[in-house]
Amino acid sequence: MEQFLIGVDMGGTNVRMGIITPDGNVVRKDHYPIDASKRALELIETLILKLKDLIQKELKDPKQLIGIGVGIAGLINMKKGIISESPNIRDLKDFRLRDFLEKEIPYPIALENDANAFTLGEGWMGAAKGCKHYCGITLGTGVGGGMVVEGRILHGTEGMAGEVGHMVIDPEGPLCSCGGRGCLEVYASGTAVRRMALEAVAKENGLFKLSQGDLKNLNSENVFEAAKSGEIAAKKIFHEMGVYLGLGLVNLIHLFNPEKIVIGGKVSEAWEYFFPSAIRTVQERSMKGPRETVEIVKARCGDDAGMLGAAYSALIRTRLDR
Amino acid sequence: MEQFLIGVDMGGTNVRMGIITPDGNVVRKDHYPIDASKRALELIETLILKLKDLIQKELKDPKQLIGIGVGIAGLINMKKGIISESPNIRDLKDFRLRDFLEKEIPYPIALENDANAFTLGEGWMGAAKGCKHYCGITLGTGVGGGMVVEGRILHGTEGMAGEVGHMVIDPEGPLCSCGGRGCLEVYASGTAVRRMALEAVAKENGLFKLSQGDLKNLNSENVFEAAKSGEIAAKKIFHEMGVYLGLGLVNLIHLFNPEKIVIGGKVSEAWEYFFPSAIRTVQERSMKGPRETVEIVKARCGDDAGMLGAAYSALIRTRLDR
Repeated sequence: MEQFLIGVDMGGTNVRMGIITPDGNVVRKDHYPIDASKRALELIETLILKLKDLIQKELKDPKQLIGIGVGIAGLINMKKGIISESPNIRDLKDFRLRDFLEKEIPYPIALENDANAFTLGEGWMGAAKGCKHYCGITLGTGVGGGMVVEGRILHGTEGMAGEVGHMVIDPEGPLCSCGGRGCLEVYASGTAVRRMALEAVAKENGLFKLSQGDLKNLNSENVFEAAKSGEIAAKKIFHEMGVYLGLGLVNLIHLFNPEKIVIGGKVSEAWEYFFPSAIRTVQERSMKGPRETVEIVKARCGDDAGMLGAAYSALIRTRLDR
Repeated sequence: MEQFLIGVDMGGTNVRMGIITPDGNVVRKDHYPIDASKRALELIETLILKLKDLIQKELKDPKQLIGIGVGIAGLINMKKGIISESPNIRDLKDFRLRDFLEKEIPYPIALENDANAFTLGEGWMGAAKGCKHYCGITLGTGVGGGMVVEGRILHGTEGMAGEVGHMVIDPEGPLCSCGGRGCLEVYASGTAVRRMALEAVAKENGLFKLSQGDLKNLNSENVFEAAKSGEIAAKKIFHEMGVYLGLGLVNLIHLFNPEKIVIGGKVSEAWEYFFPSAIRTVQERSMKGPRETVEIVKARCGDDAGMLGAAYSALIRTRLDR
C-alpha cells in the first residue's frame, strides 16, 4: 500500500497543506486564508475540518496516511508539544496543540516551528539537499531560522532553539518585539524594510510617491517594486538590510561552521538588492576557514518549503516511534 | 585490566597532561611550560617525549592506555585532523597533527579545539554534568566556546564550529584579531580587559597606579586585583565587560536554547564583578521561554577542564571506533 504524509504550514495569513510521499513529492496541495483575529480554538477546529476533508477526499484508504506534521510560528516546547509563544495567533499561548490534534485526528502528529520546517523542507527537497550541517533563514514579516546539526534539526533543551532573528546585531539598535534591542529581525525582515522606508521618507522624501500619499501603503513589497524600477532610496534600504543580514550570517558561520546557509521567505525575493552587501560583509568579517566552507544560497522550494518540512518532521517522528 | 586515558591541554604558555580513568578521575597529572616562539615541530617533539615518559613511568602496562586526547587552540579541521589556524603556535597552520602523533605514539589520538575540550570537560565532570544541551565559554586571552547538542560537541561541517568569541556584538566596535570588528572577544577577554584599562588610564588616570608607571604592566589580572581592592575604575571595566558578555549570552540562548551555559577561563575569576551586569543584560534582552530554561553557571573543573575534555574526546573516539 502506498504511504503518504500530510504537511501543514500554518502562517499568519494562510494555511497551506499538502499530501506528500515519503520521498518528498507533493501529490496534492491546498490552502485557505486564516483570520488571525479569531480565537485559537476556532482556527484549530477549522484546521481539523480541512485535514479530515483532505484525508477523506484524496486518500483511497485512510490507512495510507502515516503521519501529519504541522509547522507554526512561535516558540514550541517540543517535549510537551505546547506552543509557548505564538506571534500570529495570540491565544495559542500554552495551548497543548499536539495532544489536541491527536485526539481529534488519530494519526501521529509532529509539531515544528515554521522556520525549522522551512529549513527541513529545503534540506529534504531544496537548496540544501544532501547537507548534514546547514542553516536556514526566513526573511518574512519577521526573521526566522533553523539549524541542522548532523542531519537533525537543532531543538535545544526544550525545542526553542534557532531564533536567528533574535541575535543581537547592534546593541543600540531599535527595539524588537522580543523585548530586546537591535535584533536581526529589526534589520532584515519585511517589517524592517517598511521601517527603513518610513525613515527614508522622513529623511529624504524619495520614497513618498510609493505610499501614494498614505504612509500606511508603504510596505516591503512596494519598496522592492521601487528598487526594481531603479529608485535609489529603495535600493539603499536593501543594501543596508544586506549589511545587517551579513552580520547575522557571520555569527552563524562562526558558531555553526555550516556547509550551506539557505535564505528564503517573501523578502528574499529582493535577493539581487540585498545579497551583494550581505556577502561583502561576510567576506570582510568572517574567519577564512569556516567562510571558505560555506555556500550561501537562495531557497528553492518556494511556498512549499514549510509544508514539506512539516511532513518531513512527521516522517522522522514515525520512524523514531517504530 | 584497568584502563586509562591521557588528556592533554596544550595552551599558549603551558601544557597540562593527565592520566584519567574512563569514569573521569584524574589519577596523575603533570604540566610543563611551553615556549611559543619555538617552531611547531620542536614543540610537538617535546610533547611526544613527555607523553612517552608519562606512559612509561605511570602505567604498569602500556596496554592499559586506550587513547590520547589533545586539546589545542585554533580552528581544527576535524575530518582531516589538521590545525587550520592556531593563534598560539603560528607554524602549526595546516599541520597534520593527528597523523603525526599517531605515527609516533601508537594509540588512537583525538584532536579537539581547546574551548570544545573545556566544554566537554565541564559536561563530563563539572558544572554541566548530566546536561545534554549546553554551551561552554572560556574567558582567557581570547574568548572561546563550545556547544553540546544532544550530548555531542557541535563540530559543524569541518570541525570549526563554536567560535563564540567571534560573534559580532557591536558592528562598529574595535577591530578583532579575526579580521572582523566588535566581536565578543574584543569585549570579554583578558586582552579586552587590558584594552579597556588602557582606555580608562587615558581617560581618567584612575588606574595609572596599577601600572606602576609602565603601562606594559597593566593586565587583566591586576585590573581584577584593583577591583577587589575597591578601585571604581576597575569595577567599571568588569561591569562593561559583563554587559557585552550578556549580549553574547542572549545570542547563545536564542540560538541554542541550552539547559546551561558554563563560563570558565582565567578572566572568569572576576565573576562577582562582571556577572551581575551580564545577567541583567540577559534578563532585559532575552525571550522569556528560553531564558527561563537556562542556568548560567561558573565552571567547576578549574585548570583540569581542558585536560578532562580532551580525554573525554579520546574516550568517545575509542567507543566509536569499536
